[in-house]
Amino acid sequence: MSESTPASQRLAFFQNQLQNAPCAAEEPKIKTTMESMAEERQKATFDVRELTYFLDGGEKFTKIREKFMMELERDPTFRMYDMYDVTKDQIRERTMEKFRTIVHYVSAEPVPIFTMRMQTISLIDPGFWTRFGVHYGLFFGALRGSATSAQFSHWVSKGALALNGMVGCFAMTELGHGSNVAGLETTATFDEASDQFIIHTPTITATKWWIGGAAHTATHTVVFAQLIVRGKRYGTKSFVVQLRDTHTYKLMPGVNIGDIGKKMGRDGIDNGWIQFTNVRIPRTNMLMKHTKVSRAGEVKEPPMAQLTYGALIQGRVAMVVDSGNIAKKAVTIAGRYAAVRRQFSSNPHDVQETKLIDYAIHQYRLMPLLAQAYAFHFTGVETNKLYDDLMDKLESTQPDDETMGEVIDTLKETHATSAGLKAFCTWSTLNAIEACRQTLGGHGYSAYTGLATTYNDFAVHCTWEGDNTILTLQSGRYLVSCYREALAGKSQPEGVSYLNYLDSLLNLGCSVKTNEEILNFDVIQEAWGVVTANVVKKAGDDFEVSLKTGMSPEAAYEECSQARLAAAKIHSYGYIFRRFAQAVKSAPEKLQPVLTKLCLLYGLYSIEQNAGFFLQYRYFTPSQMDYVRGQVNVFCREVRQEYIPLIDAFNYSDYMINSPLGVYDGNIYEKYFDQVKRQNPVGGEHPYLPLIQSLLRRNIEDDEPLEDEDEDEE
Amino acid sequence: MSESTPASQRLAFFQNQLQNAPCAAEEPKIKTTMESMAEERQKATFDVRELTYFLDGGEKFTKIREKFMMELERDPTFRMYDMYDVTKDQIRERTMEKFRTIVHYVSAEPVPIFTMRMQTISLIDPGFWTRFGVHYGLFFGALRGSATSAQFSHWVSKGALALNGMVGCFAMTELGHGSNVAGLETTATFDEASDQFIIHTPTITATKWWIGGAAHTATHTVVFAQLIVRGKRYGTKSFVVQLRDTHTYKLMPGVNIGDIGKKMGRDGIDNGWIQFTNVRIPRTNMLMKHTKVSRAGEVKEPPMAQLTYGALIQGRVAMVVDSGNIAKKAVTIAGRYAAVRRQFSSNPHDVQETKLIDYAIHQYRLMPLLAQAYAFHFTGVETNKLYDDLMDKLESTQPDDETMGEVIDTLKETHATSAGLKAFCTWSTLNAIEACRQTLGGHGYSAYTGLATTYNDFAVHCTWEGDNTILTLQSGRYLVSCYREALAGKSQPEGVSYLNYLDSLLNLGCSVKTNEEILNFDVIQEAWGVVTANVVKKAGDDFEVSLKTGMSPEAAYEECSQARLAAAKIHSYGYIFRRFAQAVKSAPEKLQPVLTKLCLLYGLYSIEQNAGFFLQYRYFTPSQMDYVRGQVNVFCREVRQEYIPLIDAFNYSDYMINSPLGVYDGNIYEKYFDQVKRQNPVGGEHPYLPLIQSLLRRNIEDDEPLEDEDEDEE
Repeated sequence: MSESTPASQRLAFFQNQLQNAPCAAEEPKIKTTMESMAEERQKATFDVRELTYFLDGGEKFTKIREKFMMELERDPTFRMYDMYDVTKDQIRERTMEKFRTIVHYVSAEPVPIFTMRMQTISLIDPGFWTRFGVHYGLFFGALRGSATSAQFSHWVSKGALALNGMVGCFAMTELGHGSNVAGLETTATFDEASDQFIIHTPTITATKWWIGGAAHTATHTVVFAQLIVRGKRYGTKSFVVQLRDTHTYKLMPGVNIGDIGKKMGRDGIDNGWIQFTNVRIPRTNMLMKHTKVSRAGEVKEPPMAQLTYGALIQGRVAMVVDSGNIAKKAVTIAGRYAAVRRQFSSNPHDVQETKLIDYAIHQYRLMPLLAQAYAFHFTGVETNKLYDDLMDKLESTQPDDETMGEVIDTLKETHATSAGLKAFCTWSTLNAIEACRQTLGGHGYSAYTGLATTYNDFAVHCTWEGDNTILTLQSGRYLVSCYREALAGKSQPEGVSYLNYLDSLLNLGCSVKTNEEILNFDVIQEAWGVVTANVVKKAGDDFEVSLKTGMSPEAAYEECSQARLAAAKIHSYGYIFRRFAQAVKSAPEKLQPVLTKLCLLYGLYSIEQNAGFFLQYRYFTPSQMDYVRGQVNVFCREVRQEYIPLIDAFNYSDYMINSPLGVYDGNIYEKYFDQVKRQNPVGGEHPYLPLIQSLLRRNIEDDEPLEDEDEDEE
Repeated sequence: MSESTPASQRLAFFQNQLQNAPCAAEEPKIKTTMESMAEERQKATFDVRELTYFLDGGEKFTKIREKFMMELERDPTFRMYDMYDVTKDQIRERTMEKFRTIVHYVSAEPVPIFTMRMQTISLIDPGFWTRFGVHYGLFFGALRGSATSAQFSHWVSKGALALNGMVGCFAMTELGHGSNVAGLETTATFDEASDQFIIHTPTITATKWWIGGAAHTATHTVVFAQLIVRGKRYGTKSFVVQLRDTHTYKLMPGVNIGDIGKKMGRDGIDNGWIQFTNVRIPRTNMLMKHTKVSRAGEVKEPPMAQLTYGALIQGRVAMVVDSGNIAKKAVTIAGRYAAVRRQFSSNPHDVQETKLIDYAIHQYRLMPLLAQAYAFHFTGVETNKLYDDLMDKLESTQPDDETMGEVIDTLKETHATSAGLKAFCTWSTLNAIEACRQTLGGHGYSAYTGLATTYNDFAVHCTWEGDNTILTLQSGRYLVSCYREALAGKSQPEGVSYLNYLDSLLNLGCSVKTNEEILNFDVIQEAWGVVTANVVKKAGDDFEVSLKTGMSPEAAYEECSQARLAAAKIHSYGYIFRRFAQAVKSAPEKLQPVLTKLCLLYGLYSIEQNAGFFLQYRYFTPSQMDYVRGQVNVFCREVRQEYIPLIDAFNYSDYMINSPLGVYDGNIYEKYFDQVKRQNPVGGEHPYLPLIQSLLRRNIEDDEPLEDEDEDEE
């Protein structure tokens, strides 16, 4: 081409170039699942790594968790890919394989680090976590909490700490008694002549039941039994009893043990039942830090009975943390699936079907659960801090200090609050796991996609370590008693501070001038404060009414059970929102926009889920509630923009997620198919062919009856 | 003793007698669990047997169901006691054993009776029910629905009906497509030269997935594939393809099959994946009742596309019925447990702890679920009737009849209503199973107590045969279109009749003079009508607003998804209440008092659960809603009085209940312990002893590191 080329030729040349050149209106390309995932990561307005550091409490802790995840992934005893296809006994055996590795770390690491290691393990192997927790948390914890220092040293020397020489379990629950520990039937009768206790199971319902580790692996137990000395009963105390010879593993005389068998989940832990038939133990096997029995049979009870609160709270806080962690895992699987799975398309010009996550209803199903996972994460972090602070205070305050009364008040409040949080966080997380599983459509029914097992493993949190319903009633009872104290003029602790402002709160309506002002942490907190105050008042007033009819306090509490449960529920959700908002305000500035959106979504969604109460007590008008509902959808759509980075910030490796549908790169179909084929190889012999062949090949004539000879003759 | 005995002696004598005589204020006796159960049966104010007859539709049907239960219980292939402890392959094998028995009845019984038999089987073995349903409902149903009569006879002669010669499966779902059947990728390309179709799986996502029966047992399938003739695509059609040689069971050339593997539940059915690689089938294997392809490759499409509605509705109705049946089973287990399980006691003078069912909160947990089980039962019965009536009408009405338009309207309405009912009944029942399981406390976590497996088996109902969320949106879409028609003056069918009275309903508040008047079927129905009208209006108005902004109808429907889901939800629950109330009014007079209480409880409880809507639309004032909440507790307490007889009326044998905690006589502890011991016999070899011993016996010195020689030298 040159200046001398004819104009028409030049034009034709350029037109040709234009037609073949790539241009803005190019044909849209069909995206692979991995491209569909990658494009989601380009939308982040924040630094994912910075958010991870914030969630973990700092870069140092993120590195520690990553270290744990790598160690687990590379540990052959922690291979998880075939866990759905092995037998119960094989699962149990694999659980004990893991013990050896982990025992090493127990001795080598400081407690806070080891606790983080166990939190990580709980995400990938709840069965093993339980087995380990039974020895270290329950058995060893019972020794630490109830043994004298001499007794403690004795059992440590026998191998209780390093698991060389003994493996423990915790025999509290019985077939007939779970929640009512005071009603346990196993007896420990003092025999003065021999200086022994005789441990005995008097009835079938006294059989120790659900004892984790008893079926195969424990050599010793701490058994909870009724102390009987000279015919007098002193209540439930704890005793160390040897179950098995530590060499041959044969049962000790008088001890009978069986396997509780197949469970809903957590088959890795070998739960057993135990019957004791006149089993004799040295008197000194009774853990005597608190109650003591002398050689002469004198029983000395401790002055204060409230010292076991601490261990209870610790268990509950651990379950709030686990709720957050498991919620994050479930949302990761469901969220990543929705970023790459496509079904239907509303626009006939689309070259590809629409991603699930681009549907408004799918956003409504998942975004609130993502926000909730963050809410429970921050609640767990804060509650852990409160528990640690409280334990420090308890240890540093003398019984006769001025501040002891205040510390006891904080202890009671933390106990009651942790009860409510344990209940509602585990219930909500269990529901969230199932909701996430259903968003996987049919694929959620496969064991390999992970959420069916996650559900079955998690469900036990709702009934153990304090039955959820009973915990909520305890929490509600506490709120009622705080309400009555507040009415009588006594100032209430921070967690229930709304009770200090009843007059101004009870009839307060939302005073915003425009609806948009509702989208604000302070307004939402005020909403929760007002509604909580009213719901607690209702329970308290119902209680008072019952008292006035002449009922005993116990009967009156019983009568207002439903109101107490409602009070505990609203109080707990308000508490969770406050913790989330508090965490957001303390976050690095660059993270605040996205976390604020998430927190507002959580607050509005929780209000919508409890709309009845907010309208009942007229904090919101119907029109404002309509606005709240609409805003939930708006926030779902906004959060959707960056939801994959928000999930990436949880920083769970593919090994920890353990689901082909939740892999980081989004290559779901190949990974799912690969896992199915790996676990169920093609070819090989048909497992029951002769049976089918005999069905298909059966001779139909065999089904015809004898003919009636008489009819023939006619 | 005589007149001459000194007075003092006589006095002493009589005092002695008085002390030892039984008297009215006798020492209360400790009741066994069986006595605790028996006393509950003495409280019935109605004839349990009469209620059973009413539930079953008459004595004749009760006798038939009892016959089925006995046949199953005595059939060795239906032994259930060890199902938790066998392997997946063993479960599959047992499922095929059962086939032989049941195939006999298929040929021998009329369809309605055989349907009842299958409903009974679903209660005890959902895995088998599914395997059977895949051949008879799906495969054979596809033949019946889409084959010409010549084709149908051909496949019956090959053994499709009597299962002698072939076993079928239904290959619709693919790895990449579940809900969007039009998007299936498997192709069926016509090869004119050979008069064959070539069936082919072009991509990994086109792999047939979740195909029940394919992994091991099917010889043939109906495969859904894109019809391609001379390069033109005609959409998804169905084709019979042989998968395996019926003698050797080897895979046919070009067919590859694998096992999908472990699932959440229903492991009895062997789901498989299938890939076809250029598999050739005769052209006449295409099912050609509707679309036809001639030898010359001419494609003839049918005039009307709406004919498949009928089969869809049937599946949904079956799941509503199953929801009711499984809900009854769950409530039976939880209810009977609560009648005999005792924990805590609020009165120190009680000789025995208090039954769970005597706690207000436990009544609140269970009595509404009992009422809901009855509600779903009656909804299933009524919906079945409506479906049968509709099918009769469809069959008897000619396309050119005057009434055809009305029949098509009823078809659309039944389709949409059944969609909503399938979704909400299965969701509610799944939640009810878990709630019942948690009321068993720790024991609910054992596989043997039954509800963990019931949950895992039932959960699939929420995602198969129409994903629940998609169904609710379909239902909501229908409601929006009815609303728009009603606004335009067109009268709406009975199921949505509230749309014919919008002007009077929308702003109607509850007009009772006293709160007690709320406790009335008509008031509750009015409440549901008002709230439903408002919720549907909201969805309809949102839709209109979106249309006016210029969105396409599809986009506008998408935009109001959440409002559509709310509309479908409220509509469905109102419908269920109406069906329950209708059934109560038609009940024998003597049953009406107890059924009325149950129905009122259900109505009030459903209102409480959706309180936000009833307050939003101001049908109830806050004060009235408070009254409703309080009355829920009152009705729970009243229904508690006769709840065991209400459960007995379900008439499920102990074999069907299949849980030691749900046995009729209440002897729960012995039966639970017996089952645990039977499945996990005491004694026998330890499964992994060497492993534990190596852990315990490890030499701790091994863990000490080499000493640093240099330090020694210093």
